[in-house]
Amino acid sequence: MTAPGGTRVAYLGPEGTFTHQAALQWARGHASSGTGDDGGAAVTAEPLDTVRDVHDVVAAGGADVGVVAIESSVEGYVVPSLDTLLSSADVVAVDEVALDVSFDAFVRPDHGELTEVSAHPHGLAQCSGFVTGTGLGTAPASSNAAACRDAGPGTIALGPTICGELYGLQTYATAVEDFRGGRTRFLALTRRGAAAAHLARSRAAGETDWKTMLAITPSVTGPGVLARITAAFGDRGVNMSSLITRPLKAQESKYVFVVTFDEAPWAPGARDVLGDLLAAGDALKTLGLFPAGAGFRALDGVLDPDHVPVGSVSAKDEAPARERGLLW
Amino acid sequence: MTAPGGTRVAYLGPEGTFTHQAALQWARGHASSGTGDDGGAAVTAEPLDTVRDVHDVVAAGGADVGVVAIESSVEGYVVPSLDTLLSSADVVAVDEVALDVSFDAFVRPDHGELTEVSAHPHGLAQCSGFVTGTGLGTAPASSNAAACRDAGPGTIALGPTICGELYGLQTYATAVEDFRGGRTRFLALTRRGAAAAHLARSRAAGETDWKTMLAITPSVTGPGVLARITAAFGDRGVNMSSLITRPLKAQESKYVFVVTFDEAPWAPGARDVLGDLLAAGDALKTLGLFPAGAGFRALDGVLDPDHVPVGSVSAKDEAPARERGLLW
Repeated sequence: MTAPGGTRVAYLGPEGTFTHQAALQWARGHASSGTGDDGGAAVTAEPLDTVRDVHDVVAAGGADVGVVAIESSVEGYVVPSLDTLLSSADVVAVDEVALDVSFDAFVRPDHGELTEVSAHPHGLAQCSGFVTGTGLGTAPASSNAAACRDAGPGTIALGPTICGELYGLQTYATAVEDFRGGRTRFLALTRRGAAAAHLARSRAAGETDWKTMLAITPSVTGPGVLARITAAFGDRGVNMSSLITRPLKAQESKYVFVVTFDEAPWAPGARDVLGDLLAAGDALKTLGLFPAGAGFRALDGVLDPDHVPVGSVSAKDEAPARERGLLW
Repeated sequence: MTAPGGTRVAYLGPEGTFTHQAALQWARGHASSGTGDDGGAAVTAEPLDTVRDVHDVVAAGGADVGVVAIESSVEGYVVPSLDTLLSSADVVAVDEVALDVSFDAFVRPDHGELTEVSAHPHGLAQCSGFVTGTGLGTAPASSNAAACRDAGPGTIALGPTICGELYGLQTYATAVEDFRGGRTRFLALTRRGAAAAHLARSRAAGETDWKTMLAITPSVTGPGVLARITAAFGDRGVNMSSLITRPLKAQESKYVFVVTFDEAPWAPGARDVLGDLLAAGDALKTLGLFPAGAGFRALDGVLDPDHVPVGSVSAKDEAPARERGLLW
């Protein structure tokens, strides 16, 4: 499968996961050198045990790119993945991939009477309607991929689409999840020293709109710090699309703020903001930047997009409704 | 187990989870009426299938209190639990419980030669050092509780401490997780109409320091909205300890901001902030409030509390270091 000079992609394994699917999708779209026997770009995809392992192998030059999940429309940020990026000195994200979280049901080509449905307990739960509809019992597996790999002649195994080709299975049914529309974003990570070359390729391909993910660690804590930081963006007209706080030491109110904003870090407005924050004494780290394409923008939440949260009150509500909504 | 007039607690099941343990811990500490045969407070704890079910039964008066996980030191917010609270009109959080995420290893009192270690795949992964140390094979289960309930004579089952008493097992080893220090916060939910009585009891018990969790939905989106909101808190000297954005429709930059701040909503400073936000046209909903005790404050993150994220740069760094850190 490997050609010299091909793209080496490390990902959070095991094989047959959505992350594996995202890694191959990224690599097939971006591999820049070498062709394999099948005429496609030569890609080596290596599953690793932990997100930290993916960072380490990328930092050490053992892989050109690492792929890990970072955010889902249902679960929000994958915080352990974010924390690893925060604590990884030599790695930065230069691209992203977004995937629908959709399960297919597979059987062996030589299957007999079907007697059980197998998947990771989460997979079984996410496809409970389909599972119930089969009338069969369930067999929990250590992963969806393991369920597919180890499927017996009586097994319907549930997993990402990639499991079909990976384990030579027949597709029995597609998109068997209970709820459609779940999406997950994955980061493509590279060595910090290699980021310029990756980004230059994206720019040469005509990319002009960027999102930047920035870690801000204030030197002084207390009331007003978050207001100061958000004002720094507002004052320069740079839009933040996301902000979360991660505690360093909650008891002492020490936090890192992870902000996503709508410019490249080298754009004039962003340079001014970052300069202002540095001047105020904050420690900064660009965690990643991405073309502001479909992947990022498509990750809507699961809340009703046309309404404010039910039970909210506004200025036009009478006093009793306000008291109820606000617990005044 | 149930006495008339006792406290009815619904929780996200199944039995034998950390949430079950948190529900019993909350109920034993707060049940206010009735005593059981054992002399303790009478508590009925009912496991339900989904977080939505817990909200629904509380809203309908079928349980006095509902208990669900909301945040962990490793994973951050439990976003589906937060989203359910956002979209639940009649339910509000009035207290919290924090637990160490710690696994014990159990065997049957009549166990024979031990041949396998069983748990949910996540449990097996979180205790990988212990599992490897046994030299035994693994048997994935649909939940840790199921592993404990169904333990055979050759099984070591891993689960929360509560599983020992629940399934009549012997403790083989305690705290067998790979990493200590993980904690999870749980919310105690009640009907909005019953919140005043719950909070009055806490106030009568001498509670004076509160944290409030508030959902803010701006009527106008775009650059500066987050700066305006955080400035509203800063201007009144009210400290925010946490803020996350949840997308309503990312493509149109429609977000709900979930803020935690260091006052009760009825405190003078908070009343002013909420009034300012209402006047600016925002829709508001108090999602919960908690005594600002050990539970909340003890939930430090897993990042090194004494350092900024490695690779961060500050004003004192030279230009090349800045360019590397910021991707300028």
